[in-house]
Amino acid sequence: MHFSLDRHHPTPLVQQLSEQLQAWIEQQRLRPGARLPSIRALAKAQGVSASCVIEAYDRLVAGGWLEARHGAGFFVATRQAGAQREVGESWGEATDGRWRQFREDQAALLKLGCGWLPVAWRAEAELAQAIRQVSRGAAEALFDYCPPQGLASLRLQLHKGLVRRDIAAEPERIITTQGASHALDLLVRTLLVPGDTVLVERPGYYNLYNLLRLHGVRMLEVPRGASGPDLVALEQLLAAHRPRCLFINSLYQNPTGTSLTPKVAYRLLELAREHDLRIIEDDLYADFQDGPATRLATLDSEQRVIYLGSLSKTLSSSLRVGYLVAEPALVARLAELKMVSGIGTSRFAEQVVGQMLANGSYRKSVQRLRTRLGQHMAKVLGQLEANGWEVFCEPSGGMFVWARVPGRDFAELDALALANGVLLTPGSAFDPQGRASDWLRINVAYGQDVRAQAFFQHAGRPPAA
Amino acid sequence: MHFSLDRHHPTPLVQQLSEQLQAWIEQQRLRPGARLPSIRALAKAQGVSASCVIEAYDRLVAGGWLEARHGAGFFVATRQAGAQREVGESWGEATDGRWRQFREDQAALLKLGCGWLPVAWRAEAELAQAIRQVSRGAAEALFDYCPPQGLASLRLQLHKGLVRRDIAAEPERIITTQGASHALDLLVRTLLVPGDTVLVERPGYYNLYNLLRLHGVRMLEVPRGASGPDLVALEQLLAAHRPRCLFINSLYQNPTGTSLTPKVAYRLLELAREHDLRIIEDDLYADFQDGPATRLATLDSEQRVIYLGSLSKTLSSSLRVGYLVAEPALVARLAELKMVSGIGTSRFAEQVVGQMLANGSYRKSVQRLRTRLGQHMAKVLGQLEANGWEVFCEPSGGMFVWARVPGRDFAELDALALANGVLLTPGSAFDPQGRASDWLRINVAYGQDVRAQAFFQHAGRPPAA
Repeated sequence: MHFSLDRHHPTPLVQQLSEQLQAWIEQQRLRPGARLPSIRALAKAQGVSASCVIEAYDRLVAGGWLEARHGAGFFVATRQAGAQREVGESWGEATDGRWRQFREDQAALLKLGCGWLPVAWRAEAELAQAIRQVSRGAAEALFDYCPPQGLASLRLQLHKGLVRRDIAAEPERIITTQGASHALDLLVRTLLVPGDTVLVERPGYYNLYNLLRLHGVRMLEVPRGASGPDLVALEQLLAAHRPRCLFINSLYQNPTGTSLTPKVAYRLLELAREHDLRIIEDDLYADFQDGPATRLATLDSEQRVIYLGSLSKTLSSSLRVGYLVAEPALVARLAELKMVSGIGTSRFAEQVVGQMLANGSYRKSVQRLRTRLGQHMAKVLGQLEANGWEVFCEPSGGMFVWARVPGRDFAELDALALANGVLLTPGSAFDPQGRASDWLRINVAYGQDVRAQAFFQHAGRPPAA
Repeated sequence: MHFSLDRHHPTPLVQQLSEQLQAWIEQQRLRPGARLPSIRALAKAQGVSASCVIEAYDRLVAGGWLEARHGAGFFVATRQAGAQREVGESWGEATDGRWRQFREDQAALLKLGCGWLPVAWRAEAELAQAIRQVSRGAAEALFDYCPPQGLASLRLQLHKGLVRRDIAAEPERIITTQGASHALDLLVRTLLVPGDTVLVERPGYYNLYNLLRLHGVRMLEVPRGASGPDLVALEQLLAAHRPRCLFINSLYQNPTGTSLTPKVAYRLLELAREHDLRIIEDDLYADFQDGPATRLATLDSEQRVIYLGSLSKTLSSSLRVGYLVAEPALVARLAELKMVSGIGTSRFAEQVVGQMLANGSYRKSVQRLRTRLGQHMAKVLGQLEANGWEVFCEPSGGMFVWARVPGRDFAELDALALANGVLLTPGSAFDPQGRASDWLRINVAYGQDVRAQAFFQHAGRPPAA
């Protein structure tokens, strides 16, 4: 077994090695169950360090290509990535495609279905500068634990931003979290017990479904349409099941890109009052929008709405900073759980984000993002139409288009995508029950890459000229 | 109401204002239930910004001195900090003193009972440099999500460190967490269901007790002695209750500072085998020790021990980086939960820590800490003895001494401490049932501060000359 590694190539040696190993496995030059050379032997044969081989093997283990057997070495996995895997425990062992966008070994593919913006779009100079400033400031930011509710200076900045969205959220009603998913976890653990029933949108956020399933909570599905949840279906479910709460994206919903209309929002709040329903409004795409928008937390006069926000989509997914707005008594319980389950958030990250909110660099960077996203959205919508794709609803902004090609199922689309170097996220991931779907979530930020362009064209069914 | 604020004083205006407001409340110049001036009015009267007043009020709300009533303003709390509060939900609403070390408003007091090192002891130059290096490196570290098991480069460094501790932990057996408490949370949620029975040490880590109580897990208490858990009591509990697992600190136990002897460790593993018990070894003080030490994970040949580590105590509590070692199948389930409950850890923080582990700056900084801690431990032990304190067991290292003054209860010690500007952590916090205790956890790193010295002397009962 010998691989040709190029020390002068910009691709790191670890990646070259793991990609070539993966290719050997894919081509069956290494068969399932075959034993790999020892770390030392391969390192010597290739003239690389042992740590290079360890990391390459490790990536392939993470990707499901290799198995590590304790004390016996590394073996080609008998069930391989991409092949159908057995369903594991009820809440899964990453058995489906949900986390494949997060794998380090998939870096070569264009993640057209992913839920974040390209690194190249991000405010690198501004964030790096804020980080360096904090690193030179008070040492507490580098070393100390964060207070239970989060850093007061960050909460003050978040409060100011919420006032601009017409949401009355004094700093004592705000608690910081490690992103919106962490906020959802704190809420589910605090508000719900196994056996409770809640309302979710379909299609919707797959990680919310996973979380509710893990917690033993029963999901009732409300179809999401162009102007919000289907209110007729919602009213029937409310009457029949008395669910505890509704989870919703008002703006640029994930994955459909649709937004609540004022009429639907008012009626939703009326129904919530009639049926004593709490609403958990996950507004993590808020800053992709400027000017007036319809938000439940803005309209809510009864503290029925718990409001979630995040800096992961607009600033950084790496820093893990999000927040939640609720009544002070609930915030106190959430703060207790936040401490018990992990002694709080990162003071350093909160200081960095607070600084960018305070000095205006965050505001300027999201203005740039909005402009760029708007341009990409318009182009992708035009290209999909030209290639005979069907779009669920033209979004007015945000990252996502929900689209399909009539007559093509996911397996077909996935094969066409991979052939063009594109990694999709299956539409089934956005279904509460994981049902097969021919719809795809397309992240428009990646839509002008040549691989995406080729995929749109090859997968599409353009109308006869 | 007017406060004299000094713009030229190094204490920030917010802190000056909040401290003076707190003093007014303490002196009952502002009575419980009294309404505070509006933010605008106080800002105008004092010639400060509205955000300064907001932050001061906010700190006092967080400290329990004020209450915010929605739409009506701020009021002096009717039940104030320090006074006896009602017990809330079963898992509490921070009703005891557990989180008082984390409050921003207690910054003026010496936290003699806290669980971390002073900022001045930390490797500020080294950490700041690593942060700046990462900020100038690949943009992925600033922006991208982290892979489910944690950054491969960090896990490789952790693996190397574990090899030096004679613990066989290949990178695929390691998963990163946001500190050891987060690791405990992932484990409890994955391994235990409500109604399960587990073994904990008494006294022990209060946040573990909170976590188990929150999860509905029943705790059996094993007394901790000078050489480890009481094996006679342990064997009886194992025979009578068949608990699922044991949570233990082998080294420099929190709060007693005691370490396992080899004899106790061997017998513990024998008992674990006989009774099919899993052991969760929280070794977060590992790096405070150099040279041979007795660890269960080192001796374990059956993968019975799940091993936890953290960088919070030795490097930074702000970055939130810890890890856990277990068999790959369990690691896969933990990784799934880690993603579902928060989409993973901070890539930035893991890159920074990985870099300091790789370039040797972490190793050098903990060598300095060990030397300094050893000197402080020796001094504090001598001073406690000279002042007639009783020490549970002289620790061979680490941060903690478990001590008391014969004849003085906690209320008496707490009053003496506050009179000397010292904030204690009550011994009751380290009891699984919160029973009153006259023992105190003393963090030796703070022992040479004049306030600690005065407290040791005033609270002690020196033997008659």
